[in-house]
Amino acid sequence: MDVEALSAFQGGDVSEALRENALPAGFGLYGRRCGISSVEGKKDIALFYSFRPARAAGVFTTNLVKAAPVRLCQKRLKGKGPFRGVLINSGCANACTGARGMKDAEDSLKLLGKGLDLDADQLLVASTGVIGRFLPREALEAGVKGLAEDVAANLVSVDNAVRSVMTTDTRPKAARARFEFGGNTFTVWGCAKGAGMIHPNMATMLSVVLTDAGLPQKELHDSLRWAVDRSFNRVTVDGDTSTNDSLFLLANGAVKEFSKPPKKLLDLFRSALHAVCLSLSVQIAADGEGATRTAWIFVKGAKTEAAASKLASTVATSPLFKTALNGADPNWGRVLAALGRAGVPFDPDKTELRFGDVVVYDRGMKTDYDEKALHGLLTKEKVVVRADLRAGEAWSFAVTCDFSKEYVAINADYTT
Amino acid sequence: MDVEALSAFQGGDVSEALRENALPAGFGLYGRRCGISSVEGKKDIALFYSFRPARAAGVFTTNLVKAAPVRLCQKRLKGKGPFRGVLINSGCANACTGARGMKDAEDSLKLLGKGLDLDADQLLVASTGVIGRFLPREALEAGVKGLAEDVAANLVSVDNAVRSVMTTDTRPKAARARFEFGGNTFTVWGCAKGAGMIHPNMATMLSVVLTDAGLPQKELHDSLRWAVDRSFNRVTVDGDTSTNDSLFLLANGAVKEFSKPPKKLLDLFRSALHAVCLSLSVQIAADGEGATRTAWIFVKGAKTEAAASKLASTVATSPLFKTALNGADPNWGRVLAALGRAGVPFDPDKTELRFGDVVVYDRGMKTDYDEKALHGLLTKEKVVVRADLRAGEAWSFAVTCDFSKEYVAINADYTT
Repeated sequence: MDVEALSAFQGGDVSEALRENALPAGFGLYGRRCGISSVEGKKDIALFYSFRPARAAGVFTTNLVKAAPVRLCQKRLKGKGPFRGVLINSGCANACTGARGMKDAEDSLKLLGKGLDLDADQLLVASTGVIGRFLPREALEAGVKGLAEDVAANLVSVDNAVRSVMTTDTRPKAARARFEFGGNTFTVWGCAKGAGMIHPNMATMLSVVLTDAGLPQKELHDSLRWAVDRSFNRVTVDGDTSTNDSLFLLANGAVKEFSKPPKKLLDLFRSALHAVCLSLSVQIAADGEGATRTAWIFVKGAKTEAAASKLASTVATSPLFKTALNGADPNWGRVLAALGRAGVPFDPDKTELRFGDVVVYDRGMKTDYDEKALHGLLTKEKVVVRADLRAGEAWSFAVTCDFSKEYVAINADYTT
Repeated sequence: MDVEALSAFQGGDVSEALRENALPAGFGLYGRRCGISSVEGKKDIALFYSFRPARAAGVFTTNLVKAAPVRLCQKRLKGKGPFRGVLINSGCANACTGARGMKDAEDSLKLLGKGLDLDADQLLVASTGVIGRFLPREALEAGVKGLAEDVAANLVSVDNAVRSVMTTDTRPKAARARFEFGGNTFTVWGCAKGAGMIHPNMATMLSVVLTDAGLPQKELHDSLRWAVDRSFNRVTVDGDTSTNDSLFLLANGAVKEFSKPPKKLLDLFRSALHAVCLSLSVQIAADGEGATRTAWIFVKGAKTEAAASKLASTVATSPLFKTALNGADPNWGRVLAALGRAGVPFDPDKTELRFGDVVVYDRGMKTDYDEKALHGLLTKEKVVVRADLRAGEAWSFAVTCDFSKEYVAINADYTT
């Protein structure tokens, strides 16, 4: 997608992606409550299962402090697989839990493998929730056994699975894209949980993406990396990168296997994967803790894409910009001040700044714009800010949400 | 000051520093309302004046986008001086105002020079307030003329001057230190305005520091740089560096001139200057927009001071840590997660983390601490967090305040 396509991007139809028949062929989703989460009645454990052996790729948090399940999956994904599923719990991050945390993660997969009659090495795991608490062993075991029973009874439910991985999310997040190749229709489907501690490198929180195209491990990994850099890694809620960020891609080849995928197929797959990742990213920003609107910051005319990315991200992370966005306050001075402190050289006296299509600043000075019209633009659900540095051809973007009193309320007493 | 002295540091007596007789010899302060600020009755223009020629040093914002007065003073301070005073207005930042903004800054000093019968080149200027608006010329001129009349009538007032530079500050900020050398008593006095857009490099907002010791320009500049790196540059309110940050140091030698200052004197002067800068920095953090408490983050056992500084600053800037601080929520997982994403290598499995004197995390795992006692520690006005990386001898610190609903309310509609 180019700048114009991205500016106009509205995400896909979430409710359609949440329908049972939206899934790629050969996958079953299961979710239930086992009691790990302290929120009464909240579903808190899910299984994303492939009925046939699949290949997998993963992208994980760059935080030095990595939760036990992250370390376990990074190790496991160095092997060739095959893989059969991802077990995810909410309510406890299983981070900063030492050797016991690692054993809890390994044991839960052993138990699941036993229930599914599979080698436990073919399973992956992720956790989300409070840091520094042990998983409640009894609840965890009951949940894992229950999921294996659900698989046996064929109690598939996209809704249960997607809701089980949510924490402070206010709504489920899912996306789907399809493409045709050689007379077959392929599906890429994904879901995510977001809400807080969302920031590039890698911004994702937890996400699972499934496809019925069969691709080699290397192509899966390269495509995922490429798509994540242009979607999840461009989204920020609060600048905090969590200890548990994990994104899994499972490809089971249920429609067709390609041991040497043609370039045309790979391009179609990448586009579909990117559309799904981008839609999920935007859903995350829009449902950022306490968020009422999103802002898309485009920086163009830069010398490099990395420079443009850093500038856009600095604006997207600025609390002063994000609070102004909350108040629909057209305070473009804060955008410029954030660009100026990003640590990337550019010339403010050559730069142009727009809110929507209104030029508010040009070549060192404010312009003569209509304040009321500008305020109107800022009350929309999607606000577009564009900076043109007039120094090169590269561009990038960042998506963020506003900083509201509700964000503070949600985060002031999360563990207590 | 070492780690222990800093942990125990409570700042000085602000009300004493605000008394008329607290000033160093040979300085007069003036402040009044001229109508630049839209807040009714708010004093908005001040003059910090030396009755005799002084030397000056300055530290300014590192933001690429620099307000007109910053650019003017950076040029002027390349000359040798002497300097006689600093004119400061609140209510308008005179930033992003192009050639007209520069002319406004220059003209106001010309007019002030005329009123004081001085060469305008001997005067410095700073502005604070909204970005992207022109200074109202009529109000500005009335204010400058009024200040010259105040000087003639000897209408000195520390309180008027200090209050004139405030914006969203809820209270005036001032500090004073004294030292004896060779039978003389020397005074270092300073005031500051803070509140928002406060972040290292250089974090200050506006501050004026005055001394009656007479020191050469180079020693003044070096001492100021040294003190600022260990005070203002260790404070963050919201991670945003403004376009107008300016700190001026004027030394008029009214007590004694030293053309070749002995090392002992320089050491005494640096300590006094550091105490004043540190006190002002802490007053700024404590009065951060919407703040209810401060946190001091100490990182020790690091390989370099720069690494320790970056780690401490990353925690101090994390919205998730700052909201937890607001709720007195002992969520140390967020401290660890922030350290982990700082981009500085360390080993979480060797690290120890304390809130106050309570060890909450050690070598990869949570400890068995009393949650209630911990919550109690966090309800204090000053919260101390210590990380020991156990990898070296270097240490640093950062001071921050909590993120409250009031911060959002203050910043959601600043320009409207």
